[in-house]
Amino acid sequence: MPQIKNLTVLGTGVLGSQIAYQAAFHGFAVTAYDIDDAALEKAKGRFSQLAGIYVSQKVAGAADGKAEAALDNLRLSADLGDAVAEADLVIEAVPEMMELKRDIYRRLAELAPSTTIFATNSSTLLPSDLKESTGRPDRFLAIHYANNIWVQNIAEVMGTADTDPAVFDAVVEFARNSGMEPIEIAKEKAGYVLNSLLVPFLNAAAGLVLQGISSPDMIDKTWRIATGAPTGPFQIFDVVGLTTAYNISAASPDAGSQAFAAYLKDNYIDKGKLGVSTGEGFYKY
Amino acid sequence: MPQIKNLTVLGTGVLGSQIAYQAAFHGFAVTAYDIDDAALEKAKGRFSQLAGIYVSQKVAGAADGKAEAALDNLRLSADLGDAVAEADLVIEAVPEMMELKRDIYRRLAELAPSTTIFATNSSTLLPSDLKESTGRPDRFLAIHYANNIWVQNIAEVMGTADTDPAVFDAVVEFARNSGMEPIEIAKEKAGYVLNSLLVPFLNAAAGLVLQGISSPDMIDKTWRIATGAPTGPFQIFDVVGLTTAYNISAASPDAGSQAFAAYLKDNYIDKGKLGVSTGEGFYKY
Repeated sequence: MPQIKNLTVLGTGVLGSQIAYQAAFHGFAVTAYDIDDAALEKAKGRFSQLAGIYVSQKVAGAADGKAEAALDNLRLSADLGDAVAEADLVIEAVPEMMELKRDIYRRLAELAPSTTIFATNSSTLLPSDLKESTGRPDRFLAIHYANNIWVQNIAEVMGTADTDPAVFDAVVEFARNSGMEPIEIAKEKAGYVLNSLLVPFLNAAAGLVLQGISSPDMIDKTWRIATGAPTGPFQIFDVVGLTTAYNISAASPDAGSQAFAAYLKDNYIDKGKLGVSTGEGFYKY
Repeated sequence: MPQIKNLTVLGTGVLGSQIAYQAAFHGFAVTAYDIDDAALEKAKGRFSQLAGIYVSQKVAGAADGKAEAALDNLRLSADLGDAVAEADLVIEAVPEMMELKRDIYRRLAELAPSTTIFATNSSTLLPSDLKESTGRPDRFLAIHYANNIWVQNIAEVMGTADTDPAVFDAVVEFARNSGMEPIEIAKEKAGYVLNSLLVPFLNAAAGLVLQGISSPDMIDKTWRIATGAPTGPFQIFDVVGLTTAYNISAASPDAGSQAFAAYLKDNYIDKGKLGVSTGEGFYKY
């Protein structure tokens, strides 16, 4: 099984920076790549902020110096060749645009050592959509993280039919060693496990409101009391963000989804109510 | 708004006895009806058991005499006319057979005072399916309880187009006064709110296993970690009971549901693994 010690993360947005910091926190040597110095300057700020969050949210060991030490395990680079020269694993977390991703894999294929494993964090594309561009389909798969990685510490690991099982196992092992609970997915599936559960659940909740059956707060209360969950579906919508919910609904051909997209736009998005991030969505925060 | 003081519950099975005991615990004068003395003898045992559960699970006030006092608020009767003579509200919790229910409503229509409100606890039938037999569609609706009423204390209240709004409000008020969180449902909907959320959620989880995407324990772990819920979908299946899950799946014309029914039968039901109740289902207990 390949050994993973050096990690490179491509993209230092919200999730990319969390992936890099989490691995650095657990002792991996991490290089964070982004396109220019301005992006890397932002990334530095994100890493410092994460160090503070790990301490304030009492992640084990954070207050005993690990949160600070993680910053020493992080190196920044705006040169792709330099960033991946020593990488055992490259996790790609660049924006969700097929051509952008394919282009970066084509460049990676030439720049990275032939042994380097590539993994995409894409939520919406299947690894099969990208594998040809990597030039190494046997060393390519998906590893999918959720936001707030230090709490929602799942890493969904999903290969294609071409992925070498030893590579799959190595990435599962890496996930575990970087403080994640690996979720092993045996076959390619759009939405992985989490969104395959979440989407029909949230659609059902949306349908009840659209059809005038009940209200968001009644529906949430029902779910909380009956299942003991801390949050109901509309509270989850507010955390995910109503713009994301709108984009997913609007992109679906289903009539119910289209109606829900319109409902979100008219009642929330056009009024600046985007969820927890703006202080108001279905609820006020 | 009609005042509800005297409650009669028809049927003293698992849920019927919980509905009766919960209302008695909250000070209502409750008559529990069942078909013969043998059934009523069983009901007595259930009520004593519930008194013990309310104390051991620390329902507020239970240890201070309320659990015992509830037993004094409960009267048993195997004579339908006697059972409903003083009832402000009759909650019907007899087995889920359309003709059995219609027959009992036809008898009730003659025996109960004209002011008595009738409510069905049916999970699978709509109140519209039953309203004609009641002879009083304006004073008829559904009130739907979940098992383990003292913890999962929701009461889904759902009328038909004929239900008098004042009657609806009176039943909502009764639910609140008997320690329930009323869930007001504005339009008839099969599955009410809870099952309308639960069924697509559980179906999605079942699909992931049937398609070989992932395993029940991985799927449950994903849901627990990502949403903070105490249980994942297969833990919920085990609580609901795999026989119930089988019956619902087998009754659906959908091919995926049929496949899941067969999967449950071969791997669990035929091996006596019915869920929490038998000590083993998807998990061991």
